[in-house]
Amino acid sequence: MEDLFIKAFKQADYHVNGHGPRHLQVLKDAIEDLVGETESDMYGKGRVIEDFQEKMAGVLGKEAAVFFPSGTMAQQIALRIWCDEKGLKTVAYHPLCHLEIHEEDGLKELHHIKPILLADENRVITLDDVVNIKEEVACILIELPQREIGGQLPDYRMLEEISEYCREKGILLHLDGARLFEVLPYYKKSAQEVCALFDSVYISVYKGIGGIAGAVLAGSVEFTEKSKVWKRRHGGDLISLYPYILSADYYFDQHVHKMDQYYEEAKELAELYNRCAGITTLPKVPVSNMFHVHMEARKEDMEAIFAQLYKETGIGLTGHVRENGDNGSRFEVSLGDLYSRVPKNRLKEVFAKLDEKMKSR
Amino acid sequence: MEDLFIKAFKQADYHVNGHGPRHLQVLKDAIEDLVGETESDMYGKGRVIEDFQEKMAGVLGKEAAVFFPSGTMAQQIALRIWCDEKGLKTVAYHPLCHLEIHEEDGLKELHHIKPILLADENRVITLDDVVNIKEEVACILIELPQREIGGQLPDYRMLEEISEYCREKGILLHLDGARLFEVLPYYKKSAQEVCALFDSVYISVYKGIGGIAGAVLAGSVEFTEKSKVWKRRHGGDLISLYPYILSADYYFDQHVHKMDQYYEEAKELAELYNRCAGITTLPKVPVSNMFHVHMEARKEDMEAIFAQLYKETGIGLTGHVRENGDNGSRFEVSLGDLYSRVPKNRLKEVFAKLDEKMKSR
Repeated sequence: MEDLFIKAFKQADYHVNGHGPRHLQVLKDAIEDLVGETESDMYGKGRVIEDFQEKMAGVLGKEAAVFFPSGTMAQQIALRIWCDEKGLKTVAYHPLCHLEIHEEDGLKELHHIKPILLADENRVITLDDVVNIKEEVACILIELPQREIGGQLPDYRMLEEISEYCREKGILLHLDGARLFEVLPYYKKSAQEVCALFDSVYISVYKGIGGIAGAVLAGSVEFTEKSKVWKRRHGGDLISLYPYILSADYYFDQHVHKMDQYYEEAKELAELYNRCAGITTLPKVPVSNMFHVHMEARKEDMEAIFAQLYKETGIGLTGHVRENGDNGSRFEVSLGDLYSRVPKNRLKEVFAKLDEKMKSR
Repeated sequence: MEDLFIKAFKQADYHVNGHGPRHLQVLKDAIEDLVGETESDMYGKGRVIEDFQEKMAGVLGKEAAVFFPSGTMAQQIALRIWCDEKGLKTVAYHPLCHLEIHEEDGLKELHHIKPILLADENRVITLDDVVNIKEEVACILIELPQREIGGQLPDYRMLEEISEYCREKGILLHLDGARLFEVLPYYKKSAQEVCALFDSVYISVYKGIGGIAGAVLAGSVEFTEKSKVWKRRHGGDLISLYPYILSADYYFDQHVHKMDQYYEEAKELAELYNRCAGITTLPKVPVSNMFHVHMEARKEDMEAIFAQLYKETGIGLTGHVRENGDNGSRFEVSLGDLYSRVPKNRLKEVFAKLDEKMKSR
């Protein structure tokens, strides 16, 4: 069934999520108008990397920024630098933090850093969680939005209070801003304002930004210079990172000003899902361009329903359904350039049919 | 002076070393004929990465191969896996091993592995060095050719003896084959034959191969599967590595069959250098496409001589001279596609003039 479902998804006329397929054309478009003589970066030096790093430092309001091949590498290194600074091997983050569940325990295996898990799996970190940490920690990592629970956010005031508390106590605060730009419309803040609450900031260049791969780590010059040493140790100081940097720069300019639109569209789309029988979104009202869709039907059943739906309507809602508990399933939605290309009448049709199919299961 | 020297080098009509400038055109050429719908790899999965890995496993005669963003990452991981396998935290390698001098001690800082240095800085590792290791080691790393001493090689028989000895003693043998294909003409062996002497093999895709960045690590399926876990821990399991893979594949096919030519040209070029007063090459007769040029004149003086020479002849010999001892200097030469494009008569002219200039210092 999964194969048929994926096939039906791929063959749909329109897709609702994201910026489009992750294929070679993404790279071709990014470099098409650049001259062939554009010089490569060389082990972190050269205009192509230095210019982009300066641009990102400015955007994030930090002294300096460093381009990394991945966020996994950038964030482990950020926490390691803060641990070394404090002479402590303990940090704190959410139980569904990327470092905890997606990195094969790199933080523990390579850096021997112990994480304390804050809050619980179903909610974001609050000031109480931070105040009640029983051990001394070097650093706290906050992810905005909390991706694994649908992209939830703390109130901005709460964030400010956590930041103030950490400064007072000498705890360093790191931002997992993989989707930082995506939350700015809800917070009604600039990237600089949000980043000012944190000592170090990581952003991804291939989520809402739409690049190919890569990450930026920003902070003080002292911090970023140390991060370059660790980047080399990790094997991330490549002779050439320009394929990622040039595409990050290209798509940053294309997408960063459209985060308001994606946010509004996410709210609109979530409402359409929430009107369907047996379907709810998390959060109910999105606070960024993303949310999760929870269904009261098993993965195989939903894949069958979706495969049918895509064939009937030509609209692909998702290509990836996961189990959720014993009798449920879910998938993630991130809005990008594709949503606005879907004709509104066809979108209404697909959700009317989805509602019917959910009722007649 | 250095700026004038580099300017003169860049403005030369012909360059003698390498495949050409490391600029964006290298990427453009690699992907030009590929369709935009070519799908990205996704975290190590997908045709683009799996096909290239299979191809490389075949070329190297190993069960499996894994594409890495860098050799730094691949080799630390190889040594870590072998250390874990043996329950030992000690390895042995040459004092000028890449891991010892170019990686900010990543092996020690991230993996807490202690290296024992074999041989001395001026020669390659012999069987005696291996037999005389005083401590138990999990693994020995051999670099072919030994880059930092001009690309020297042990005799092939010596290599076989080291391999036999290690198998007998249960010491794992890892090949730093950054320039493996470049030494095959001298050894008159296939890549498979050389790799069969080793338990694990790393090759670079951007030295003689001429790609943009990246590395391949090959060995048994058990070994490579473990390496994928560590690749994720290091932050090297990128969502998309295809810009490097597609270009590695493209340039592999362009260059791998030309290693004989580069080797012959290296010997020819080294002879031209050795005829000049105050200049010798290391090794005297190259055993690969590379060698070092040693000059009995200081870096600043050689830069002045070269700047003048490049302007007079339009031929750029090198763009990078380093100090060597108190009164000497040196630079590295690697032969690639550019050498054969330099008209032979102009090449003779440049070396006649260089000899004159060296004599009249």
